[in-house]
Amino acid sequence: MELQKIGTVRSPYKSLADIPRQGRFVNTVSEIEILPAFADGLLRIETAQRLIVLYWANLAKRDVLQTLPPAGSELRGVFSCRAPHRPNPISLCIADLLAREGNILRVKHLDALDGSAVIDIKPYTSVDSLPIDNAEEFNAGVGIASAKKSCS
Amino acid sequence: MELQKIGTVRSPYKSLADIPRQGRFVNTVSEIEILPAFADGLLRIETAQRLIVLYWANLAKRDVLQTLPPAGSELRGVFSCRAPHRPNPISLCIADLLAREGNILRVKHLDALDGSAVIDIKPYTSVDSLPIDNAEEFNAGVGIASAKKSCS
Repeated sequence: MELQKIGTVRSPYKSLADIPRQGRFVNTVSEIEILPAFADGLLRIETAQRLIVLYWANLAKRDVLQTLPPAGSELRGVFSCRAPHRPNPISLCIADLLAREGNILRVKHLDALDGSAVIDIKPYTSVDSLPIDNAEEFNAGVGIASAKKSCS
Repeated sequence: MELQKIGTVRSPYKSLADIPRQGRFVNTVSEIEILPAFADGLLRIETAQRLIVLYWANLAKRDVLQTLPPAGSELRGVFSCRAPHRPNPISLCIADLLAREGNILRVKHLDALDGSAVIDIKPYTSVDSLPIDNAEEFNAGVGIASAKKSCS
């Protein structure tokens, strides 16, 4: 299973220290430049409000299976938290689509390092928008501040 | 960017014709068997209500960039619809976690073919649960029936 790069992230995050814990809680705007060979795959993407962006976390460690989430007090498996470190370092971020200009997408809330390789883009639909029963408690466990806390 | 298989799907979907358009609208239960080498990555996964499952769509075509979604009338780029065919055929499905027994996860709503290679699992959190302004209209365009229509 070999991945091919479909595009590149242009973001203000030039080093790992610049990246917010979750892109959703800051209003940073980034660009995704789709490679010309894949630009036909963008047809009608401007009808989407939000995009699921899969990108390759190039600096992540692939041999880490457990980690202590930031703000968490208990060790968690990488499949039960959102650490970039995992056997296949594919990061997932839901970004808001602001505009499309040719093969360039302007997006808000993407948390990718400048230069990251984009692997896939999918529209965010109603099957992705689901309630969570224990959101506050669970988010705290995985080191994700709640929207309420972070935006107030 | 080379992927490694972290586990295998055991589902009642033995052929492509068996798979529903969206797993969310049927109550099928599947199992994800995580390979022993990666089982430590499951620590505390039972605290999650829903999981984002990334799996490899082995039968998908990688050279398709535009497609006509089922029930859609307009050609779309693969990055603006949820077709399995795309340059990197990584399918994404949000499944409900029913139970964990050792390295086996019982999940509901997964739409993967039996035997599919699992690439990654992430907990579904509040940063993934977002409203969509034009859900009905957009879902129709990408060939996803709305929950209201499908479940009534």
